[in-house]
Amino acid sequence: MTTTLLDQLAAIVGSSHVVTGDAISDDYHHDECLTAEGARPDAVVCPADTAEVAEIARHCNTNGIPLTARGSGTGLSGAAVARNGGVLLSFERMNALLEIDADNHAAVVQPGITLAELDAQLAPLDLVYPVFPGEYSASLGGNVNTNAGGMRAIKYGVTRHNVLGLEAVLATGEVIRTGGKIVKVSTGYDLTQLIIGSEGTLALVTEVTLKLHPRLPHAATALVPFATLEEVTRAVPRIIDSGVNPMVLEYIDLVTMAMLTDSDADLELGVPDEVKDTALAYLVVVIESSHPDRLDADIEILGTRLAELGAIDTYVLPPHAATRIIEAREKAFFLAKAAGATDIVDTVVPRAAIAEFMEAVQALAAETESWIAGCGHAGDGNVHLGVFQSDPDRHKEVMTGLFKIAQDLGGAISGEHGLGTAKRSYFLELEDPAKIELMRRVKTAFEPNGILNPGAMI
Amino acid sequence: MTTTLLDQLAAIVGSSHVVTGDAISDDYHHDECLTAEGARPDAVVCPADTAEVAEIARHCNTNGIPLTARGSGTGLSGAAVARNGGVLLSFERMNALLEIDADNHAAVVQPGITLAELDAQLAPLDLVYPVFPGEYSASLGGNVNTNAGGMRAIKYGVTRHNVLGLEAVLATGEVIRTGGKIVKVSTGYDLTQLIIGSEGTLALVTEVTLKLHPRLPHAATALVPFATLEEVTRAVPRIIDSGVNPMVLEYIDLVTMAMLTDSDADLELGVPDEVKDTALAYLVVVIESSHPDRLDADIEILGTRLAELGAIDTYVLPPHAATRIIEAREKAFFLAKAAGATDIVDTVVPRAAIAEFMEAVQALAAETESWIAGCGHAGDGNVHLGVFQSDPDRHKEVMTGLFKIAQDLGGAISGEHGLGTAKRSYFLELEDPAKIELMRRVKTAFEPNGILNPGAMI
Repeated sequence: MTTTLLDQLAAIVGSSHVVTGDAISDDYHHDECLTAEGARPDAVVCPADTAEVAEIARHCNTNGIPLTARGSGTGLSGAAVARNGGVLLSFERMNALLEIDADNHAAVVQPGITLAELDAQLAPLDLVYPVFPGEYSASLGGNVNTNAGGMRAIKYGVTRHNVLGLEAVLATGEVIRTGGKIVKVSTGYDLTQLIIGSEGTLALVTEVTLKLHPRLPHAATALVPFATLEEVTRAVPRIIDSGVNPMVLEYIDLVTMAMLTDSDADLELGVPDEVKDTALAYLVVVIESSHPDRLDADIEILGTRLAELGAIDTYVLPPHAATRIIEAREKAFFLAKAAGATDIVDTVVPRAAIAEFMEAVQALAAETESWIAGCGHAGDGNVHLGVFQSDPDRHKEVMTGLFKIAQDLGGAISGEHGLGTAKRSYFLELEDPAKIELMRRVKTAFEPNGILNPGAMI
Repeated sequence: MTTTLLDQLAAIVGSSHVVTGDAISDDYHHDECLTAEGARPDAVVCPADTAEVAEIARHCNTNGIPLTARGSGTGLSGAAVARNGGVLLSFERMNALLEIDADNHAAVVQPGITLAELDAQLAPLDLVYPVFPGEYSASLGGNVNTNAGGMRAIKYGVTRHNVLGLEAVLATGEVIRTGGKIVKVSTGYDLTQLIIGSEGTLALVTEVTLKLHPRLPHAATALVPFATLEEVTRAVPRIIDSGVNPMVLEYIDLVTMAMLTDSDADLELGVPDEVKDTALAYLVVVIESSHPDRLDADIEILGTRLAELGAIDTYVLPPHAATRIIEAREKAFFLAKAAGATDIVDTVVPRAAIAEFMEAVQALAAETESWIAGCGHAGDGNVHLGVFQSDPDRHKEVMTGLFKIAQDLGGAISGEHGLGTAKRSYFLELEDPAKIELMRRVKTAFEPNGILNPGAMI
């Protein structure tokens, strides 16, 4: 990028909000993805408002400069890592909570606000934005762009079910508004939904209108050991049928459970040793309620139902242990990372196919002399795996094989992390070419110059 | 269309499944829209499977023949009415329930199946597809293409929240599959969501994977008179906060209530005359539950809360009256039609703005010497109005004014009926030109020849 172009960026956002070259902190060169290559943008710009974002987009579009949007950089697919020589647009200054509208159950936020900051404002009002993808320093803009999911999807859906509207800047600098504080709309193509999950490749999201829910005050967490994963898989739909409306239905495999108990000596789960010896898979069920007596009744219904379904027992966890086990499940990625995983996967399959998927995956692991372990969102079929295979060719073979297994079972490569630069090549290889071509034409319909996050997703 | 072209269509679907010219029944020339002009396609074709749909599309695309998809023809915007000289593709033969997958809580259906047929199959399994747009002879394909909503949206969302995947035929005849029996996916642009609500202008939907829910066995309906609509509007968010999780929150205005009671002499709502004299607006609340005792408790919570919110009283309706009032609300369109409405509207506004919207609409009615009356989905801001204005110029003025009021309040032209040919001109006039252009480019990305339902929506 020429000095003139950098000067133009500085003129847009003010020179103190542009960092260039070696002055760019290493933090901006990567996200949390294990495999995406770090990159060195020529400039990191931090706009103050939508007008500045529009100017930056126009500037990059005219000059053919790659432009990548970034929130907190907690992504797991490399989608928020800029191209070498490109511009990284960080939304860190656009992090305001613009409005909480309790009558319409909506909040309007800028993309840079984190889930933690938003939740801190909503809690005193007994409201909740219910998408909890497990990393609360994540930004809402990042959540929108990856269609973040998390554990509570079984009850509340994912980001796309809880975003009502957007303000977005097109590559040309045009600003559009989509949706609004309305939960129902059939007025033209749904651009809100198209932009959600598009990983910054279609438009730059500058404002998000979120759907809020009442924050239910009572919750209980049950830990349920089963003899096999297959039994867990069979139990899940019947728990849903029971009407207890679980908020979380997670399974934890033995390895993760061992890592968890090893890492916290004080953790008392109340599971006797003889149960531990026979349990090969654990289900974690969280139920929430507006009334404590209903919560108790639901836990009883759950326990009875689980016993019929072959659960070894049902342990209602004390608050500390409940918090810890959910946190541990959320941080399983870091355990995998610390253990030396060469890649992580968040493949999704129909939830009834989880056991079949895991069986095929273990066969693949044996065949390729890899180690694959993990746990997942049993309620929604989103399986998180750590893959351990240090040989690059073998690694690619394992990953392709794993995604192919998921696709053949009716699933997809990513349930919530997105494709970014890390999973893109597998997607391009495995997806129907007619769909890839269609998606490329949609991308071109948004921005023919291809400056928005080129090389990510598509 | 030449005889050769018609022969080609007959060769695809079999001559008994093509009707041409004057042999086409009048039923195919219109939908339920009051204002869309009827049209006479050159041919009505009824394919048996996806391969035939693909052949028809290819044929029309190559020859530049307008092609309009049609389900049951119950639409309210003219979107399922073919162009003069075009081809109407009726999905009446593709009406199978292909699969109910109780373990994944999913059903796979062909587009021609009706909501009533689907529900009859799901009820014995204690499952429900929860989108009830009020017309049960409507087809699922039509529901997908209009993003149908209905009364239960407050609890269950609309069609787009309950469709997991699609099979769709592009204009070129290419067949794509999107989504699947998975509730979470971040793998490329969400083509499922883009096609939902696109009114047959992007692709032909040939298969739909639906999300199912447990069918809760107990429900109660409360009729709640208020002195003003403003009080109803204020009460709605507080009912949501109460945690009773209402399935239906409808308001019924005096005119509709009078029409309803007049049309059914046996209807006993239990509202004393002195209450009728002071009530200007009624709220209907339906709560469902897995347990009868919880239902009773919720009704009590609701009654207490409503009393605090200024309700004159709360009447729990006996089953017959409950069914009738909900049916009547669903059939309000037919009451408006019978009363001579010149148009109907299903504008959506933020639900807290309903009273303000209605006030502005009444001012508009007075100003333009029109009569506007209706009721609506209080829970989601989707206001259904009958417009009575026989002068065509004035009619257009009223409609434009009404939509402008809704837009200025942060709403949109249609909450659930769609734009079709009936509301399209207002949309093109009132919507941001940058968005219209973007939508047109998206349309072109799908089908550059513009043969799919031209003149509808965009």
